[in-house]
Amino acid sequence: MADERKWVYGFDEVEDAEAYVGGSWDSVRGLMGGKGANLAEMTRVGVPVPPGFTVTTEACNAFLAAGAQFPGEMWEQALSALKHVEDQTGKTFGDASNPLLVSCRSGAKFSMPGMMDTVLNIGLNDEVAAGMVKLIGDERFVYDSYRRLVQMFGTVVLGLDTEPFEEVLSEYRKRFSVDNDAALPPEALKEMVERFKGLASGFPQEPIDQLLLATEAVFKSWNGKRAFDYRNAANIAHDLGTAVNIQTMVFGNMGADSATGVAMTRDATTGEDHIEGDFLINAQGEDVVAGTRPTKAMDDMAVEMPELYGEFRAIAKNLENHYREMQDMEFTVERGKLWILQTRDGKRTAQAAVRIAVDLAEEGLITKEKAVMKVTPDQVDFFLHPQFSVEAKKAAVELGSKIAIGLNVSPGAAVGVVAFDADLAEKWAKEDGKKVIMVRPETKPDDVHGMLAAEGILTKLGGRTSHAALVARQFGKPAVVGVAALDIDMANRKMTVDGKVVREGDWISIDGTIGEVFLGALDTVVPDISDPWLKKLLGWADEFRSLGVWANADYPLDAQRARQNGAEGIGLCRTEHMFFEPERIPVVQKMITTESDEERRQALDTLLPLQREDFAGLFRAMDGYPVIIRLIDPPLHEFLPSFEDLTNERADLRIRAAGGEDVAGQLADTEEMLDRVEALREANPMLGTRGVRLGIMMPDLTKMQVRAIIEAACIVTKEGVDVHPEVMIPLTSHVNELKRQQTVLEAEAKIVMEEQGVEVDYKFGTMIEIPRAALTAGEIAEYAQFFSFGTNDLTQTTFGISRDDAESGFLIDYLREGILTENPFASIDESGVGRLMKWAVDEGRATRPGLEVGICGEHGGDPKSIDLCHRLGLDYVSCSPFRVPIARLAAAQSAITHK
Amino acid sequence: MADERKWVYGFDEVEDAEAYVGGSWDSVRGLMGGKGANLAEMTRVGVPVPPGFTVTTEACNAFLAAGAQFPGEMWEQALSALKHVEDQTGKTFGDASNPLLVSCRSGAKFSMPGMMDTVLNIGLNDEVAAGMVKLIGDERFVYDSYRRLVQMFGTVVLGLDTEPFEEVLSEYRKRFSVDNDAALPPEALKEMVERFKGLASGFPQEPIDQLLLATEAVFKSWNGKRAFDYRNAANIAHDLGTAVNIQTMVFGNMGADSATGVAMTRDATTGEDHIEGDFLINAQGEDVVAGTRPTKAMDDMAVEMPELYGEFRAIAKNLENHYREMQDMEFTVERGKLWILQTRDGKRTAQAAVRIAVDLAEEGLITKEKAVMKVTPDQVDFFLHPQFSVEAKKAAVELGSKIAIGLNVSPGAAVGVVAFDADLAEKWAKEDGKKVIMVRPETKPDDVHGMLAAEGILTKLGGRTSHAALVARQFGKPAVVGVAALDIDMANRKMTVDGKVVREGDWISIDGTIGEVFLGALDTVVPDISDPWLKKLLGWADEFRSLGVWANADYPLDAQRARQNGAEGIGLCRTEHMFFEPERIPVVQKMITTESDEERRQALDTLLPLQREDFAGLFRAMDGYPVIIRLIDPPLHEFLPSFEDLTNERADLRIRAAGGEDVAGQLADTEEMLDRVEALREANPMLGTRGVRLGIMMPDLTKMQVRAIIEAACIVTKEGVDVHPEVMIPLTSHVNELKRQQTVLEAEAKIVMEEQGVEVDYKFGTMIEIPRAALTAGEIAEYAQFFSFGTNDLTQTTFGISRDDAESGFLIDYLREGILTENPFASIDESGVGRLMKWAVDEGRATRPGLEVGICGEHGGDPKSIDLCHRLGLDYVSCSPFRVPIARLAAAQSAITHK
Repeated sequence: MADERKWVYGFDEVEDAEAYVGGSWDSVRGLMGGKGANLAEMTRVGVPVPPGFTVTTEACNAFLAAGAQFPGEMWEQALSALKHVEDQTGKTFGDASNPLLVSCRSGAKFSMPGMMDTVLNIGLNDEVAAGMVKLIGDERFVYDSYRRLVQMFGTVVLGLDTEPFEEVLSEYRKRFSVDNDAALPPEALKEMVERFKGLASGFPQEPIDQLLLATEAVFKSWNGKRAFDYRNAANIAHDLGTAVNIQTMVFGNMGADSATGVAMTRDATTGEDHIEGDFLINAQGEDVVAGTRPTKAMDDMAVEMPELYGEFRAIAKNLENHYREMQDMEFTVERGKLWILQTRDGKRTAQAAVRIAVDLAEEGLITKEKAVMKVTPDQVDFFLHPQFSVEAKKAAVELGSKIAIGLNVSPGAAVGVVAFDADLAEKWAKEDGKKVIMVRPETKPDDVHGMLAAEGILTKLGGRTSHAALVARQFGKPAVVGVAALDIDMANRKMTVDGKVVREGDWISIDGTIGEVFLGALDTVVPDISDPWLKKLLGWADEFRSLGVWANADYPLDAQRARQNGAEGIGLCRTEHMFFEPERIPVVQKMITTESDEERRQALDTLLPLQREDFAGLFRAMDGYPVIIRLIDPPLHEFLPSFEDLTNERADLRIRAAGGEDVAGQLADTEEMLDRVEALREANPMLGTRGVRLGIMMPDLTKMQVRAIIEAACIVTKEGVDVHPEVMIPLTSHVNELKRQQTVLEAEAKIVMEEQGVEVDYKFGTMIEIPRAALTAGEIAEYAQFFSFGTNDLTQTTFGISRDDAESGFLIDYLREGILTENPFASIDESGVGRLMKWAVDEGRATRPGLEVGICGEHGGDPKSIDLCHRLGLDYVSCSPFRVPIARLAAAQSAITHK
Repeated sequence: MADERKWVYGFDEVEDAEAYVGGSWDSVRGLMGGKGANLAEMTRVGVPVPPGFTVTTEACNAFLAAGAQFPGEMWEQALSALKHVEDQTGKTFGDASNPLLVSCRSGAKFSMPGMMDTVLNIGLNDEVAAGMVKLIGDERFVYDSYRRLVQMFGTVVLGLDTEPFEEVLSEYRKRFSVDNDAALPPEALKEMVERFKGLASGFPQEPIDQLLLATEAVFKSWNGKRAFDYRNAANIAHDLGTAVNIQTMVFGNMGADSATGVAMTRDATTGEDHIEGDFLINAQGEDVVAGTRPTKAMDDMAVEMPELYGEFRAIAKNLENHYREMQDMEFTVERGKLWILQTRDGKRTAQAAVRIAVDLAEEGLITKEKAVMKVTPDQVDFFLHPQFSVEAKKAAVELGSKIAIGLNVSPGAAVGVVAFDADLAEKWAKEDGKKVIMVRPETKPDDVHGMLAAEGILTKLGGRTSHAALVARQFGKPAVVGVAALDIDMANRKMTVDGKVVREGDWISIDGTIGEVFLGALDTVVPDISDPWLKKLLGWADEFRSLGVWANADYPLDAQRARQNGAEGIGLCRTEHMFFEPERIPVVQKMITTESDEERRQALDTLLPLQREDFAGLFRAMDGYPVIIRLIDPPLHEFLPSFEDLTNERADLRIRAAGGEDVAGQLADTEEMLDRVEALREANPMLGTRGVRLGIMMPDLTKMQVRAIIEAACIVTKEGVDVHPEVMIPLTSHVNELKRQQTVLEAEAKIVMEEQGVEVDYKFGTMIEIPRAALTAGEIAEYAQFFSFGTNDLTQTTFGISRDDAESGFLIDYLREGILTENPFASIDESGVGRLMKWAVDEGRATRPGLEVGICGEHGGDPKSIDLCHRLGLDYVSCSPFRVPIARLAAAQSAITHK
């Protein structure tokens, strides 16, 4: 037996556990689960924790692998640990004269709120209950505890439905005209125990059997559907297993000097350094979490139980200092004695995450680097989620469409149609592409798929730590909970609020930042980064990162926003977007369709001043920073009406002509346009005449664009603007294309600069978005002064997947079936596209040391792709102006991680 | 002056030239030109060569670079060399009493027949002519020579048109009723000299001026348009320059004991070891080449001048042994004395090239390796050019449509419409896509562009060594020349032959292998490789090559042909080609369009036995060899009617419906099919749902194909066939696709083998035709037992060029403008696609040593691409059955070159 594994650790054996797994905190958590490790750690640092022990995740995995058989001596070790608890408490498990009651809870390495199962009050049976009544004299409390045990055991361990139990409860509440279980008389509770035992016929009277079956149930719940789905959604590995924590029960429902609560050491919504939470006097923990009784705020506890609050606050600060992180704690006061039942790192909103990280650093608890690492790029993204515009809100208030206020538990504005259950919410969102607000009385783990699919969540019940609040915050969904004013009529699929009826499918808007609910769909705006904590955090990020962060912007307004968000250059201005503007498109069509050189030149002359003004605006906005302007890219036929539309139009006109109408003129026009469109049509336009190929085919177009760029640069130079234009050639596949375009460009630029009498220091470079360009980067760098990876096209050609088709076609199947684990258009495919990029960077810089290399594909704003760009040694990433703050943080995190 | 460069070398100074350039024969030819080097070399080995000297190509380049200025002491060196020639001949340049006459000819490193310019009889003027008449007493000869000098000087040096000179000649022939210039009386020739001097007013009387201007003209002709175009067509560098050869004139037109001729040491058409050529008694060389007088065969010379013929044959054999190559010689007999004016490697037909190479090796003059290197893959291609079918010829003869016989100067059958000039031939061929036979009285250098564009060439005049014959042979164009029966009426764009009128645009057929001309378009067949010399040569090639040569074949008949041509396996069987067969397409359409699983299974069940029989046929044909079968590849919509057709059909039906017709049923059918086609349509089908993506979408289709393959393999195994099937997955981009397909395949194969009670040793592998597959080849090789490069698709994606569009679009412009020097779909782009291939081979074999790697794209039959495949270490190339012999030779040449 010397080498029998240790499957069970007492809370006072954390050193043993550390010794077994090698001492790292992460591995202790892996072995004991987050909750167990924290209970043990708290015990070590002297926090008052009810005695108990942990059965390890290794035991869980061994149990599951063996087909639901406890491994080796595990159960014997548990019994021996139980004996130790009896020694610590002076009580005996199953002894009616002085009974020890315990809870049995799951505790995995990563917190999975509400996902796993819990059984309380284990150890009670008819005999022990009777003994306890004798001992403490409170029959109501004892039988309330007993009926809770039977109910939980029935639903959690025996897998029974909750409804029959709730019906009985409801019946008694009605019979005694009370709205609170705690107000039921003892005889009612006693009767209920019998009724419950009738429902839960497998409930064992033997306390040790209760404990054994509960432990097995927790192990088994690891592979339950709810847990499995949650892990998939939260990206948690399926092979970690859960630990089981057996802990002495303490009771918050032993009278007015008892209480229970959950609290965060800081405000989980704003991050403010102030204890926030909910508590209830004379209640058990699940009453708080489930939101079935209206809770009080922790500030009330400060008034009602000032000494205990003071003690709690001291422990909270102690734990926060110990973990150097904001804590989420559960506590119980049993007859005036404070017990801490659990602590863990607190979930928080994006805003709170930022503020807490900054505050902790400024308090000296963590370094700036650590603060930068603590906030995820996604959190910065959520931070910058849309909010309702001031005007929209004002109008809504004036119209009386603001219908309710609730708890602002997860920030951001969300607009959608009401769906009253998770399945419908998911169906509408995924299949019909609707924006949905999921509205529920309260949410449960079974609702998570609907919450993930919805834009936002609205509930009648629940507090800041309710299931709805926790899940919404974790996944960044705006949520308003505890809106008591909602009168939800599930049977008729409608709700009434403030005298107004909202039916399923009606539009509503919710503001998770301040907790308001509106009728109809309100306009949203995107916030800037003026929050002082975010500003500070991003400033620190800028100190650490080596990648530059630029933005893709086609218009001066976009460039201004990008600059406000911290962009240090424009990595991509798509000149064709200027061509697509409604008032310009007829001129562009003329340029394309005319067969007269003179007409084409006139069209180009008309476009020149428009483009010049666009460019000048960009240069002014980016004074002092580089601006990369890409010459025209898409296939010409994109500027013309669609072939299908024209074909249908022709068919209609022919039918009208056959019917005797005089449409000959229209028909001739349509057919002429159809001819042009057909001539420019290609079987595979993505691989066709676009990009530089177009520039070579139409050198006058290249010339016009170059002239517009250089004229604009000269003009703003005269205004005193510090301008750094970089002209970028798209879709290069062969160095000769570049040579050819460079000749046209340099000649025209020279002429313009002589005309204007200004010398502009411009760069000439190319997109790397075709595999051949990457493969021949060494040759291309002889002519190109900079590279910019166009990873959308590069992914397309490297994978042989048309983005136009695949994202609505087989790519979806591939992702669903796991053939691809990630959408390569969302995050760069490192083993394929990444290899090409590495080759291009290395070969390009071998030819031209110091070659400027960046990325302007949509991947430029994706943190995982940014990390790759950092490792490849790129100079900058360029992304949407909205993602600039995210990219700044992600770039810093890469720099710190790979330091 | 000690370091003044030597610009001029006497024919007797070849050792000096060798010493200057370092001794290699190639560099001597580079310096002295092919003709000059050969004259010097002949002088060294004792062949009777008229004395002379060579002005080097370096002088030409220096002259051209200096803006038409002779470099340094060049002219002084030439005069001194001329003095040496005077010493050798005992005659004096410009001395009327004993005049030396010289020729001045161009001579570049590579022979450019008829492209460069020649001036004969330099040194004649009024005074010298009079002196010569006194000296040799033959006034007719002297003034004939003089008028030739003036004519050539006028056209070549002064750049005058030939027509006025020809008109004068024509006038005199008419006046004296002779059809042969040699028959004109001396006084006529004397008058003509005066007339010609009138036309050529710049003709200098001073002999040394004649020589100087002629030398300059030859230099300048290097950059003339004709020469430039020829070099482009023949892939000769433009910076080589031409040498000038000044050589003592000898005269074949000094009476009946004089003659001139050109002859090959072997038959240039068949390769037979027999002197073949043309000669004329009492004539000058250009009379033979131009074909203006009917020539005699060399066999006639053996009868008419037996001793001289014997002497010539001995020299011919001597030179052939010296150069170890068949020689093309020019000779002149002046009053019974044989002079050799030129020797060079003889141009020959493909058949002759093969036979001569084999014969030379068997005669011990060259090694087998050398023989293999002597024949170009293109020549083997020409060898296997189409020929008229026996039936077609028989029918044509019976119908009387065989209209003429001429000289079979360049083999192969050609069919096309008649074009009477080069510009029209080129226009029709290039712009209108017509097949053209160019018909001319004779051809000149100006006609080359038309000859290149035409399918074949037919001329009235000219012999085996005529311009038409030489050019046709070099470019592999079938040609029949010297068809005296043709009566060409250029003014009315028609010809009459055998009483039949053929107008421009009418179809004719010519057989260059035996010299026949037919009315109409005859059927052609493709020959096999039964020629004994070719067989022997390819056998030697097989000894040297390390690359296997396999073939792409979809049908048993193709496989048989491939095997006859030497294929050692099938590298690609495209299973979808079987689906496209007219009787199968309705079943295939049903399979695709049905929404009933049952109907789909029925359709697949119908296809199964058809595919099985196809595969069984292939396996039988390739008994003992591997057969790679690729699972279905193209996008499904390719099997359905086109979207455009259906749209038009629908429009028509709607118009008919609007007109009151009852077409409701048809309209509904059309709309239903249109819906299906639209559902399967993609914006970029080349990058869409095809290849393995289809197999994953329709696993039943994969299963059916696997079943057909394995069932067929089992069946033929039972017949005793040694079968080696390899199942190939197309369009793989990620290893997971392969894993997924492998699971389906192995399960089905196992079932079939158990059903059949036969164990088949099959391989599982993949196309590498997507850049990502090449980049992740290391991972892919964990599952794939073989790779096959699909270089068509790989080029498409690596370049980002759609083959469907580009080859009719911008790619043509790119090639014309030199942005690309080669069509990457014809020859593998080594710097782009080639790099990916190298990566894939290296990474694939790192994972799986000995991984079988081949190529099955169309590049597999391209010699340049084959060379790349050899260097990359591929196991085999797979190409069209027709190109298998070419690939065998090309593979051997690569092996020898890179040994």
